[in-house]
Amino acid sequence: MTQLQRAAERSAAEFAAARAHGDPSLEAFARAVLGLVAEPGDGVLGRVIGTIGAVDTAESLLAGGSAAELVERVVEAGGDLDEGEATTGLDRWLPRLDHGAFVRSLSQAVRVGAVLLTPGDAAWPLGVDELGVHAPLGLWVRGRADALSSATPTIALVGARAATGYGEHVAMEASAGLVDRGFAVVSGGAYGIDGMAHRAALASDGTTVAFLAGGVDRFYPLGHESLLARIVQTGAVVSELPCGAAPTKWRFLQRNRLIAAASRATVVLEAGIRSGSLNTAGHAAALGRPLGAVPGPVTSPASAGCHRLLREFDAVCVVDADQMAELAGGGRGETIGRRPPVAAAEGGGRSSAAGHSNGMAADDPSGVRTLDALSTRTPRDVTDVARRAGLSVPEAMSALGRFEAEGIVERRPSGWLRRRAG
Amino acid sequence: MTQLQRAAERSAAEFAAARAHGDPSLEAFARAVLGLVAEPGDGVLGRVIGTIGAVDTAESLLAGGSAAELVERVVEAGGDLDEGEATTGLDRWLPRLDHGAFVRSLSQAVRVGAVLLTPGDAAWPLGVDELGVHAPLGLWVRGRADALSSATPTIALVGARAATGYGEHVAMEASAGLVDRGFAVVSGGAYGIDGMAHRAALASDGTTVAFLAGGVDRFYPLGHESLLARIVQTGAVVSELPCGAAPTKWRFLQRNRLIAAASRATVVLEAGIRSGSLNTAGHAAALGRPLGAVPGPVTSPASAGCHRLLREFDAVCVVDADQMAELAGGGRGETIGRRPPVAAAEGGGRSSAAGHSNGMAADDPSGVRTLDALSTRTPRDVTDVARRAGLSVPEAMSALGRFEAEGIVERRPSGWLRRRAG
Repeated sequence: MTQLQRAAERSAAEFAAARAHGDPSLEAFARAVLGLVAEPGDGVLGRVIGTIGAVDTAESLLAGGSAAELVERVVEAGGDLDEGEATTGLDRWLPRLDHGAFVRSLSQAVRVGAVLLTPGDAAWPLGVDELGVHAPLGLWVRGRADALSSATPTIALVGARAATGYGEHVAMEASAGLVDRGFAVVSGGAYGIDGMAHRAALASDGTTVAFLAGGVDRFYPLGHESLLARIVQTGAVVSELPCGAAPTKWRFLQRNRLIAAASRATVVLEAGIRSGSLNTAGHAAALGRPLGAVPGPVTSPASAGCHRLLREFDAVCVVDADQMAELAGGGRGETIGRRPPVAAAEGGGRSSAAGHSNGMAADDPSGVRTLDALSTRTPRDVTDVARRAGLSVPEAMSALGRFEAEGIVERRPSGWLRRRAG
Repeated sequence: MTQLQRAAERSAAEFAAARAHGDPSLEAFARAVLGLVAEPGDGVLGRVIGTIGAVDTAESLLAGGSAAELVERVVEAGGDLDEGEATTGLDRWLPRLDHGAFVRSLSQAVRVGAVLLTPGDAAWPLGVDELGVHAPLGLWVRGRADALSSATPTIALVGARAATGYGEHVAMEASAGLVDRGFAVVSGGAYGIDGMAHRAALASDGTTVAFLAGGVDRFYPLGHESLLARIVQTGAVVSELPCGAAPTKWRFLQRNRLIAAASRATVVLEAGIRSGSLNTAGHAAALGRPLGAVPGPVTSPASAGCHRLLREFDAVCVVDADQMAELAGGGRGETIGRRPPVAAAEGGGRSSAAGHSNGMAADDPSGVRTLDALSTRTPRDVTDVARRAGLSVPEAMSALGRFEAEGIVERRPSGWLRRRAG
């Protein structure tokens, strides 16, 4: 019996409960253990696990093996790890290997009804695997474990804690509109924009998911305790940190990568020039996910971060739920790409007015000029109309014919008349 | 003596006066004549002039030659024109060939002090030549004929007539700021954004240029008569139309191409979804000129056109005069390109926090995590700090050493302490 099996047996009851929705396998147990010893996004650990698997990695740590032994196992399995990396890694992980703390964390998870999802579970959000060696080892979930499954299109709505009334209004409209279009709304549970996005989704009977930077056993921020409790009823509160873990700056930054990775698209609704939501936006961009930003008054510092995203990150300007849904490829299974830029017309020539004016006339220079040349009071003959329009008589006649068919002009015995609008 | 020479002699006094800043050559006279018979942007006329020159073109018209003769001259000179095009062209131009009207137009130009610029004049704005066969034949100018010369960097500030207080505020700040940076501000003389851009430039003792859709002898709109008169004092009011020509829809659309072509960059400050300023923007894009749009509240229909430009035309989001100057390649001879998008960090790994947080610490994950692990009250030894940070002891020591040098942390006999901010 390996040390990992012995450790698993010592935590058996709690661990099985924490895997309520999946198989309490040794693989899952190993990931739970490793989640305790490493900070989120530990790339060295991610590489080791990627090569020799979570079970062997956890065995290595529990056996208190040397750096040389770890390197040997990884290299034997075809991976890449040098002794310096292994030494530094073990030096990071081993001091945290504490069975007592682990059991306390598991008990706490069971107490609050948190379950552990691991890769391969049906409800695992596939998007986070794109983080590669920085992917989460597992996700602790309170609420509906399948809230992030690929069956539901997800969109991240994030923004500043210091939101304005404008930002909160836009967040509310956007979130409600996206719920109507079948999206689950992902955010960070913070004050300001995040809170408004969650609240509006709940109010629309939609699914919303909050990613936390600490364990899901303690809701942060404190003022959102009841909001997060409501999210648990119909959606999910999620973290890669084990129960008992406190939120830190680093964990907030890493939490942001999960919000971006678990969502089809990320939209920043309002953000100061140094808002943490720009970090989430950076992750979305790095992952190649669609990134949207809602503009606001240039006189409002609370929109400066959004404008920076439009300028520097090539974020797409989105002004309503429709455009956000389009950004995320459409709700309810639709796939709608970003519209290509409308081809601008050749300078001054034929169709430069197209798309910028009302009615058919604008699509055609002869039409514009013929209408220019007509009066609503004085009938004019076709030669007069042509001269005034700077057109040949056949060009003017052709335009007049079309406008007559459309009911825009009128033929009188004494000449042509433009009909009054309305 | 050709017919053109005879016509020129009959108009000699007026024409010489209207060429006050240049040579009253037959070439210029021919362009003045042709400007009377064709609507702005007539591509067929542009091709004929491009092949056989303005003088021969005007001679052909005055001689009342047939379409076949015109085709022969063009083809002989190596150009491309078929008889249908020639017929249609002559049918457009000949009915307007009226010496009486021409002399009245010239007299009116002399009366209001308008002068004619033609290509090759020192003050000719070279940018408009990029319109190719749609380039203006000449430009009638009241005020400083050299206001658009290449010596001064130009930028177009345009927008809706139905501007809001927000739009007018932004236009005022932008225009004043651009004048401070050495730009001449180009616009369309309309109510709303255009008017505010002109006014703020005047108030800052800057140069501003208004392009009109009709002759410069009659200021349009009427309510801007005194504004346009003030522009003439220090800047210029410009049109490709001869004096006496009324503004028409077509001429407004064509006037927009000149605003875009005469400016290094075009910025739309506020525009409804169907504003004419989007037409100007389309011309700027078609010419490959930098195009900027100022965002506004998504709840304001007066900004919907700007947001459309950001989404569909790849316009650059600009929020102040600095960014507008940068868009136009900098004022006072500087050349600054558009900044490339900031490279977003790799997902979750090393530097994803870079650029989105304050201070040095944020540039370095070990730093963020070391600071997270320190208390401002309880000193902690390096092993404790490392374990809390999830770092190896050497990593934590290295970070602590750097922070000590920066004065952010403090070494006590009992361990390390984070200094309170401030």
